Amino acid sequence: MIQLASDINSDQRASSSLRTRLLETRQLSVKLAAPLTAEDMVAQAMDDASPTKWHLAHATWFFETFVLAPRMPGYAIFDESFGYCFNSYYEQVGPRQPRPKRGVLTRPSLESVRAYREHVDVALEAFFALGLDEDDAAASALEIGINHEQQHQELMLTDVLALFAANPLRPSYGQPQPQKVTAAKRGWMIEYAGGVERIGYAGQGFAWDNEGPAHETLIHPFALADRAVTNGQFLEFVLDKGYEAASLWLSDGWAALNREGWRAPLYWEQRDDEWRAMTLQGMTRLDPAAPVAHVSYYEADAFARWAGRRLPTEFEWEIAARRAPEAANDLSSGALRPLPAPSSVAGAPRQMFGDVWEWTGSAYLPYPGYRPPLGALGEYNGKFMVGQHVLRGGSCVTPKGHARATYRNFFYPHQRWQFMGLRLAEDL
Amino acid sequence: MIQLASDINSDQRASSSLRTRLLETRQLSVKLAAPLTAEDMVAQAMDDASPTKWHLAHATWFFETFVLAPRMPGYAIFDESFGYCFNSYYEQVGPRQPRPKRGVLTRPSLESVRAYREHVDVALEAFFALGLDEDDAAASALEIGINHEQQHQELMLTDVLALFAANPLRPSYGQPQPQKVTAAKRGWMIEYAGGVERIGYAGQGFAWDNEGPAHETLIHPFALADRAVTNGQFLEFVLDKGYEAASLWLSDGWAALNREGWRAPLYWEQRDDEWRAMTLQGMTRLDPAAPVAHVSYYEADAFARWAGRRLPTEFEWEIAARRAPEAANDLSSGALRPLPAPSSVAGAPRQMFGDVWEWTGSAYLPYPGYRPPLGALGEYNGKFMVGQHVLRGGSCVTPKGHARATYRNFFYPHQRWQFMGLRLAEDL
Amino acid sequence: MIQLASDINSDQRASSSLRTRLLETRQLSVKLAAPLTAEDMVAQAMDDASPTKWHLAHATWFFETFVLAPRMPGYAIFDESFGYCFNSYYEQVGPRQPRPKRGVLTRPSLESVRAYREHVDVALEAFFALGLDEDDAAASALEIGINHEQQHQELMLTDVLALFAANPLRPSYGQPQPQKVTAAKRGWMIEYAGGVERIGYAGQGFAWDNEGPAHETLIHPFALADRAVTNGQFLEFVLDKGYEAASLWLSDGWAALNREGWRAPLYWEQRDDEWRAMTLQGMTRLDPAAPVAHVSYYEADAFARWAGRRLPTEFEWEIAARRAPEAANDLSSGALRPLPAPSSVAGAPRQMFGDVWEWTGSAYLPYPGYRPPLGALGEYNGKFMVGQHVLRGGSCVTPKGHARATYRNFFYPHQRWQFMGLRLAEDL
Amino acid sequence: MIQLASDINSDQRASSSLRTRLLETRQLSVKLAAPLTAEDMVAQAMDDASPTKWHLAHATWFFETFVLAPRMPGYAIFDESFGYCFNSYYEQVGPRQPRPKRGVLTRPSLESVRAYREHVDVALEAFFALGLDEDDAAASALEIGINHEQQHQELMLTDVLALFAANPLRPSYGQPQPQKVTAAKRGWMIEYAGGVERIGYAGQGFAWDNEGPAHETLIHPFALADRAVTNGQFLEFVLDKGYEAASLWLSDGWAALNREGWRAPLYWEQRDDEWRAMTLQGMTRLDPAAPVAHVSYYEADAFARWAGRRLPTEFEWEIAARRAPEAANDLSSGALRPLPAPSSVAGAPRQMFGDVWEWTGSAYLPYPGYRPPLGALGEYNGKFMVGQHVLRGGSCVTPKGHARATYRNFFYPHQRWQFMGLRLAEDL
Repeated sequence: MIQLASDINSDQRASSSLRTRLLETRQLSVKLAAPLTAEDMVAQAMDDASPTKWHLAHATWFFETFVLAPRMPGYAIFDESFGYCFNSYYEQVGPRQPRPKRGVLTRPSLESVRAYREHVDVALEAFFALGLDEDDAAASALEIGINHEQQHQELMLTDVLALFAANPLRPSYGQPQPQKVTAAKRGWMIEYAGGVERIGYAGQGFAWDNEGPAHETLIHPFALADRAVTNGQFLEFVLDKGYEAASLWLSDGWAALNREGWRAPLYWEQRDDEWRAMTLQGMTRLDPAAPVAHVSYYEADAFARWAGRRLPTEFEWEIAARRAPEAANDLSSGALRPLPAPSSVAGAPRQMFGDVWEWTGSAYLPYPGYRPPLGALGEYNGKFMVGQHVLRGGSCVTPKGHARATYRNFFYPHQRWQFMGLRLAEDL
Repeated sequence: MIQLASDINSDQRASSSLRTRLLETRQLSVKLAAPLTAEDMVAQAMDDASPTKWHLAHATWFFETFVLAPRMPGYAIFDESFGYCFNSYYEQVGPRQPRPKRGVLTRPSLESVRAYREHVDVALEAFFALGLDEDDAAASALEIGINHEQQHQELMLTDVLALFAANPLRPSYGQPQPQKVTAAKRGWMIEYAGGVERIGYAGQGFAWDNEGPAHETLIHPFALADRAVTNGQFLEFVLDKGYEAASLWLSDGWAALNREGWRAPLYWEQRDDEWRAMTLQGMTRLDPAAPVAHVSYYEADAFARWAGRRLPTEFEWEIAARRAPEAANDLSSGALRPLPAPSSVAGAPRQMFGDVWEWTGSAYLPYPGYRPPLGALGEYNGKFMVGQHVLRGGSCVTPKGHARATYRNFFYPHQRWQFMGLRLAEDL
Repeated sequence: MIQLASDINSDQRASSSLRTRLLETRQLSVKLAAPLTAEDMVAQAMDDASPTKWHLAHATWFFETFVLAPRMPGYAIFDESFGYCFNSYYEQVGPRQPRPKRGVLTRPSLESVRAYREHVDVALEAFFALGLDEDDAAASALEIGINHEQQHQELMLTDVLALFAANPLRPSYGQPQPQKVTAAKRGWMIEYAGGVERIGYAGQGFAWDNEGPAHETLIHPFALADRAVTNGQFLEFVLDKGYEAASLWLSDGWAALNREGWRAPLYWEQRDDEWRAMTLQGMTRLDPAAPVAHVSYYEADAFARWAGRRLPTEFEWEIAARRAPEAANDLSSGALRPLPAPSSVAGAPRQMFGDVWEWTGSAYLPYPGYRPPLGALGEYNGKFMVGQHVLRGGSCVTPKGHARATYRNFFYPHQRWQFMGLRLAEDL
Repeated sequence: MIQLASDINSDQRASSSLRTRLLETRQLSVKLAAPLTAEDMVAQAMDDASPTKWHLAHATWFFETFVLAPRMPGYAIFDESFGYCFNSYYEQVGPRQPRPKRGVLTRPSLESVRAYREHVDVALEAFFALGLDEDDAAASALEIGINHEQQHQELMLTDVLALFAANPLRPSYGQPQPQKVTAAKRGWMIEYAGGVERIGYAGQGFAWDNEGPAHETLIHPFALADRAVTNGQFLEFVLDKGYEAASLWLSDGWAALNREGWRAPLYWEQRDDEWRAMTLQGMTRLDPAAPVAHVSYYEADAFARWAGRRLPTEFEWEIAARRAPEAANDLSSGALRPLPAPSSVAGAPRQMFGDVWEWTGSAYLPYPGYRPPLGALGEYNGKFMVGQHVLRGGSCVTPKGHARATYRNFFYPHQRWQFMGLRLAEDL
């Protein structure tokens, strides 16, 4: 999990001013780019990924477009052409560079983008000097801009990993990595009684529109593993010919596996009987104790079926992240199949934030009563509500402020380049 | 809705023996193919569709493979090569003709396929003569086979329509068509209080595995339109440049629209300022009072957004199909926007079965506790539970016995070649 | 080589009236379709191939469009919609059914197409009754129509083979097959001195526009094998890992091989260490003495390189087909590499017509002074003069009247579904 | 035409030592990259193009692989991993970075590539110091390396233009540009009597293997325009709806036009009724007097057909580049159609080198007796001899030493990103 210099606790507004957090966020983006060359920062690894320079500029364009231009008297647009270059997908804002062609934007130069960041940072500082009521719309737009830039900080790292993995030299970026599962040798299934539960964000701090409205839902009794599935466990699945057994796979997953030639998680390589993985630290020996990462929904689902369990729903995950369990079953990591006998030993799910995003069995759909915000910012989350699945938690490259039980990340079931893993669940 | 010669009421087993229903189902398939030539029956309109001859043979292969071969002593396989030709997607049964290449199966000939049907029908008759306990596994397999063939009866007609629509002569197949909305000039929003509701099939008759387990879920108060959206209403959306307004569309829908050049529902054509539609009766003038059909999920969703409403969830749809409403609002078909004022006039949803399948906002996912059956039949529904949306109800080409409040049909959000329409809902 | 009932010698007009040849050609098409069912005749095996019914109708449409409609007073178009259905690629005539969608034309029915043929045959008979000067434009158009239909007779058989090869039952159509190379056990390289030679058609009979203008070209001394490369020789190449040796292949050929997974000629299959080939007679054991067929230009070129020879130019081929050789070298079929010692034993190339079309090293380009005819018939040959290679000779499914030293067939270098083989050449 | 610092006349070896030319060539590559940033140099505009950095490294790898490693005792490979990164297509040398993925090579850094160049330059200097016989194989390999790097100098500029044209800012690289046709207002058709002519390179200097063997061919009487077709003339074709007239196009060209949406040459844009073109100097007003550039073979051929002429063969072009004409016809640039009356005014073709490569009607095929060199260098030209057309002359970005009457450039008929134009010819 990416650490800011200052300590930021869960209710962000209480402990730290908006201005301070804005400053820290803007600085962190620059810091994350520091290990990269200008060349690294312009290249696009694949259609889904974006260049680092583009992320740096886009997050800045966001503040200019949604905060400064509409709200700050006399603000001068840095460069009118940047709107075309650095708009991501806001149809209401105007046309844009096609996504798969972001890598040809060698101009504006990195130097220009740095000047752009400086221009916008100075303007934001001046904007604060004009006085800002924390409850007004400008504060809200700033808050969105901060969280938006934080999301792109995560993408910067996942996209750099994709770039370096496509490079035959397999360069190293450096930290961070998912942490090992070190707490205990054996795992447990934690039991929950279910019932009518409150879901969604209802606090005073920032949350995305798609985390609400908070509402009640009926949860059936379930159990959730106390830890994420590890590389070691996933390797058992690979060695058990899990990638060759059609009956374990969803039909679309089996088609994807055959079309793409999947034989293991993304970034895994087998050389001379040793399994290795490409990471932000370069090629490393596969660590059996670390959570498996870079698996698609299809792979996560097939693994769970092989293990005799299932993926949790996003609602089960959310209440487990918030509440004490009623009981726990022993989940021996060495004997996923057959199911271990029930156990009364209590415990709690571990590592729900900060190692890998966890695929859930829930499709990414609107909560009851959800309406996207008016205007272009309404395109942020709502228009993606079809065909994707929700991931919960947060990964080793997720900014710390995003660790929230209600946070809903979402990706297509075939995507693997994020730090995506899984945790097992079962019905009771 | 396809009518069988005999009257079949909702609890099928009570009023009609398994043997009678089998016979009628087998006969209906042949009757549905009667208006077609041998040439019509061999051609494949597109990858998603199958030739009529293939449907006739596949439904027969299903009885041979899952009933006769494993259960009838001394049964002789009609032709060993048919397994390769007419297996659809059962990985556990073996390899098969690639789906997009079903149209090259000019052999086995139609005559052979008819002989195949005769061979299997005679054997099924003999199987019944051996004595069959309605509670045993053979009865269950026969029941699945009947329902399976009925599903293919529907596909026969939708695939013939796709074939004839691709033909420059625009031939006519004949009946059936969706019925007009004739009950009243104005529509109503019917209100439901919600609460913890029982969902899924819990009766004694046949239902698919994916309709269960029956379970409770929490429904929030909602309203549902008393009729399907009509061609006339959808034409308003078209004329209001609904297909040009990115802000109405899901991101994937907007991409599909641009990639495919969608400007109206499938099968609509505008000639000399008149709107026409290709139907099973050939090209006809668009009937403004009939339910709109052949729209994708993306179009259904965009229409609902334009109309200021949303699609219902599959759970909302199911309880509305079962229970009396609490209240109703006036839904003037001429004034979808703005919302009409509430009204106390009661009513009930109409035409929930037998005109068009209705897209719901629910992704096709397993119910809590769902497990697919063991063996190859477990591939029937379970392995498709990702990336698709549920449709409820039934269309004018759905066999009558499939009209069931709990029935879950499912398609990808871009698909349009079925008789797919929509009904509006809203939060209360 | 397809035989007509009557004997037709090389100068067609002298020995047989136009009317007789027209009649025989029209009858042969029907006869060639006789072994096929209506189902066989409607299906399209792949984008490059067409249904038999389409060929039957298209060749008829050609007479209607280019002979009857413009030249016969009072001729009534059989059906106006057929123009759209059965135009192949004549942009000047109007829009048409997309080529890859010819297989959805289950209507017009085969019966209608037969009536269409009858209608046009009767009208052609009446047209002859009006009196026809053999030198006028109508006679020329009729001559083109006859030769055009003959070309489609060849395509009918190659496309049926493609259809039956895609069918898991591997049906048999029946005769014909390429003949074995039976004349002698050993092959010879026949030597030619070259010089300024006349190329192209200059006779009085029919020839295509692309066979002229006749003109002189300078030929360098060369030798040409006295026979086509056999299955047995090509199998040596396969067994010598010819499909794995990048250095033998043109760059585009290597890419095609890897993209398509080529490991042998089209229609070859290896089962239990036996090589078999799909033919018009169904699956047969590979005959080592028969000419290899169904190889792409890339494969022909790679084989020639492996054998230390090259493909002939179309000009070398043409003069060899016309003139006595000066000398011949022993070409042992069992020892393609290294080159056999020169020999003074004379001989002549055999089997230049009627077994397989032979790929030449010449691109399909216009001869000096070539101009396509005016009007839509100008689209017949001229607009395809880019990206393709010339094949010379004729195959076992080529109508006999097309056996002509100047005839230029042409296909793209990746295409294999015709009866395409090769003959070796070398520089002297 | 790219100028070297020193003056280099046509017989290169006579006036300048191999060592000097090597030095100058190596320096010119660096000089050509000088206007570019490190970011510009890493990006890949499209699959056909390569990054500047890749060109700089690849040309260096070529010297290392084919000169230093096999011939210089004790030479130390700079970095073993560079072979994988910078091999282009030499199958015999080993596997390589996939061509469409050259843009992800942000490492090795530009700095490393510069060090690589320095390392190889120092070694080449030392290699010369060992003493080099100009007739030996090392001299030949060095000569090839020089000419190879010069070809990549041209590609560096065409690929930068493709990159900058894909950039919404439309940056300027600077010089060079094709020169205007300034010699005279009216054009002439220059007549040639033809006859048996010697074709191909037979001098003492360097030429590519595909320029030989020199051989005789028979040329028919023809005329060739004294200048290239201009933007002004091509604009007439555009305005005459040349891109909408199927009858002017080769079938493959018409398909490409429709598939790609071509409406004008690549890099042309119409804004507010003004035609502009993207050039190395950025967006400029279209200069009607300059040669048209960036047209595909299909467009060149369609233009020629529209103009009532044809493209020359590569042989016609070659002898016109070498010999005095017999007569000339007036070719008024304002009246391409109908053909101007013949004229006795003599003239000579102008601008055959140094403005645009000129498409010829000749397919790129081996000359009689051609055999590629042994070893990996044999892959240089020979394996591309299918599916492409020859271009003759040279463009404004072609290194001066490549201006040679026998030089054969080759591209696929759909490609447009080089400086490709045309010159008209006709039969006499």
